[in-house]
Amino acid sequence: MIDHTHDPRAQSWVEGAAGHADFPVQNLPLGVFSRGDGARRIATAIGDHVLDLAGLAEDGALPQGLSAALAQPTLNALFRLPEADRIALRHALFALLSSERCRLKVTPHLHASDAVTLHLSFAIGDYTDFYVGIHHATAIGKLFRPDNPLLPNYKHVPIGYHGRASSVRVSGTPVTRPWGQLKAPDAAAPEHAPCRRLDHELELGLWIAGDNDLGQPVPIADAWSRIGGLCLLNDWSARDIQAWEYQPLGPFLAKNFATTVSPWVITAQALAPFRLAPPQRPDGDPAPMPYLRESGDGALAITLETTLRTAAMREAGLPPHRLSHGNAREAMYWTAAQIVAHHASNGCDLHAGDLLGTGTLSGPTPESAGSLMELSQGGKAPITLPGGETRTFLADGDELALHARAEREGFASIGFGPCLGRIAPARPEWA
Amino acid sequence: MIDHTHDPRAQSWVEGAAGHADFPVQNLPLGVFSRGDGARRIATAIGDHVLDLAGLAEDGALPQGLSAALAQPTLNALFRLPEADRIALRHALFALLSSERCRLKVTPHLHASDAVTLHLSFAIGDYTDFYVGIHHATAIGKLFRPDNPLLPNYKHVPIGYHGRASSVRVSGTPVTRPWGQLKAPDAAAPEHAPCRRLDHELELGLWIAGDNDLGQPVPIADAWSRIGGLCLLNDWSARDIQAWEYQPLGPFLAKNFATTVSPWVITAQALAPFRLAPPQRPDGDPAPMPYLRESGDGALAITLETTLRTAAMREAGLPPHRLSHGNAREAMYWTAAQIVAHHASNGCDLHAGDLLGTGTLSGPTPESAGSLMELSQGGKAPITLPGGETRTFLADGDELALHARAEREGFASIGFGPCLGRIAPARPEWA
Repeated sequence: MIDHTHDPRAQSWVEGAAGHADFPVQNLPLGVFSRGDGARRIATAIGDHVLDLAGLAEDGALPQGLSAALAQPTLNALFRLPEADRIALRHALFALLSSERCRLKVTPHLHASDAVTLHLSFAIGDYTDFYVGIHHATAIGKLFRPDNPLLPNYKHVPIGYHGRASSVRVSGTPVTRPWGQLKAPDAAAPEHAPCRRLDHELELGLWIAGDNDLGQPVPIADAWSRIGGLCLLNDWSARDIQAWEYQPLGPFLAKNFATTVSPWVITAQALAPFRLAPPQRPDGDPAPMPYLRESGDGALAITLETTLRTAAMREAGLPPHRLSHGNAREAMYWTAAQIVAHHASNGCDLHAGDLLGTGTLSGPTPESAGSLMELSQGGKAPITLPGGETRTFLADGDELALHARAEREGFASIGFGPCLGRIAPARPEWA
Repeated sequence: MIDHTHDPRAQSWVEGAAGHADFPVQNLPLGVFSRGDGARRIATAIGDHVLDLAGLAEDGALPQGLSAALAQPTLNALFRLPEADRIALRHALFALLSSERCRLKVTPHLHASDAVTLHLSFAIGDYTDFYVGIHHATAIGKLFRPDNPLLPNYKHVPIGYHGRASSVRVSGTPVTRPWGQLKAPDAAAPEHAPCRRLDHELELGLWIAGDNDLGQPVPIADAWSRIGGLCLLNDWSARDIQAWEYQPLGPFLAKNFATTVSPWVITAQALAPFRLAPPQRPDGDPAPMPYLRESGDGALAITLETTLRTAAMREAGLPPHRLSHGNAREAMYWTAAQIVAHHASNGCDLHAGDLLGTGTLSGPTPESAGSLMELSQGGKAPITLPGGETRTFLADGDELALHARAEREGFASIGFGPCLGRIAPARPEWA
């Protein structure tokens, strides 16, 4: 049963919101903004505006039980509340924004999006990155092991590892090219130098809602309800640092210099109509173990796109160039719920504001690859850009953007808003 | 130059503190305690007592600039202050506790240690675990690659990886045996079952002080000043889960079900006399790269011990059995400062209250091994305990304790206090 907040005919009275590419009234994402040097406040996005929810709550226009959580500078408290509270918030916002007679009450709290600053939406407790993009894992594996690209555990275990929470930043934050230890395969010794193989990774981020105590696994049937919402996530990767450091304990400095997320949380409630049956597993693949066996529709009908715009392209007035396009449903071997259930299956405690990355979401075709490592075949096949430049990996001044959109026949499609980062040169003084 | 707080002749007037094994007046560790259901408060330990520093500060008996930080329920704010503030605190505490005429002022804030509860001393931002114990890395490597135990990067890179901050607990918290995916090397398929190869890892923990912004590396000359203090850390490890899951991104559920730390922070100031020249690197080892080249005395004269007491031993009134003994100076290929400088060398931001583990600190001899994986040679050589039981890995009811002591001729030795955990059985309902 789909509730009326998903009715594709619904429209907001806010100018420009009806048919907005990302933020029609069916989306109602949650985020944090500020004006000038003002305090950080919780908001939703509607068309080209942000709506100050703290202000609305102060006026008594939102459910009273939410006022304390909406007065915070992050979404953590709001996502610690029961899901029913966020459902109530969605219904209240939908009513305020779709019903013309609420215009007077709401308008004082609307601000043009281009006049505000968006911030990281949570104080992140822990950040974990998964590796559920099977086409990515296969493509990367092929570069190392052409005959046996996927490791034996891949189809049994949703592979994941811990990332660095402190260096997660919101879209738009410049990404400084890191220094690190690099060693070419044929070099006698490593050197300390700026990264030469700087890459992006197209991922979805899952924001955890609620809390489970240490020692209390999350049953697979409850796992989707522990996801408060989604964002885009760019797991910037220094491939040359990674190649030299990652044995035997995994990537470390190759990743933790920066991770970028999109500012808006596309809520689990907004995504409800876009959960579909996962693709059939190939014949011969093992069935998921009982603790990972999800009944129903766990896959996400989300299309994905990556664009690149270099400094020269900006100067020449050329638009961003599409590097790849694909979709999450096809890319993910394990669903969002399976990721959560696996993470907590040993009793690990997950908390509101924890961030889980899916891993790079590449599709099965070359044009749907979610990283330059794949698109340039490990740096061997340069990509030609409009204007004639070529790239194997990212150059200084390059601006990389991730885009996502939940799309399904019969529903208003909703966008995530971009996840952007521009590469700043390595600092000479780090030597 | 050694300041007077390290004078070995100094004694506290607090009963039982003079010559106390762990907490003489030369130690003055920092921690967090509560009484009954009371609030968490910052304290130091002196002999068999804890001294309530929030209470002393309320009375105006401590430097005024520290009052706000000392009124917090964690040490984070205190360790965000400049090092000079923690030095001033140490000197003030030393004066109050060594000078008989302060007895009246101090006594109301003293509580018997056995009447209080100790808590996690920080709200941990990020937790990173390193792998700088070269004898451990060699011994573990030998189990997999007898001819080539150390990977080529080991002597160039202080290997580290991210851990889980949410599941770090204070000494004494029970450790529940985790469930996980296990696969014996000769099994056709993995199974989901309680861990059968549960192990400890003896580590030191480094608590970060101060903050560096993202993009601002920490020069090696400043790196020691970013360490606020040390603790003991038990990186509990499910070896069978680890063996199946860890390729290619490193250990995950094998580790994040629990990590135990000792409650007291042995401050960098208390440890100053125990920093000595590191052992000479073997002939032929590469020199550290410039960003890792530490001048002076970066090694730690800290002796380490692991003890085990089983349920049967407790029932029979047998004392804990010493499993291993060694020292940090001999075990660590990279120093604490090198760990910090490397972590931030790509611009990664470190913050007050971050926790860095050293990795397992095994010495070069069999009796100094910091894990059962090493002591039992991968489970092939059972250890016989007093009372006749044997162990390869940990059994339910086993209590594992880590101990550490900074020791140097001419100085009062100072102890860390134990880092304890008892194994609770796997929960049947997790199946």
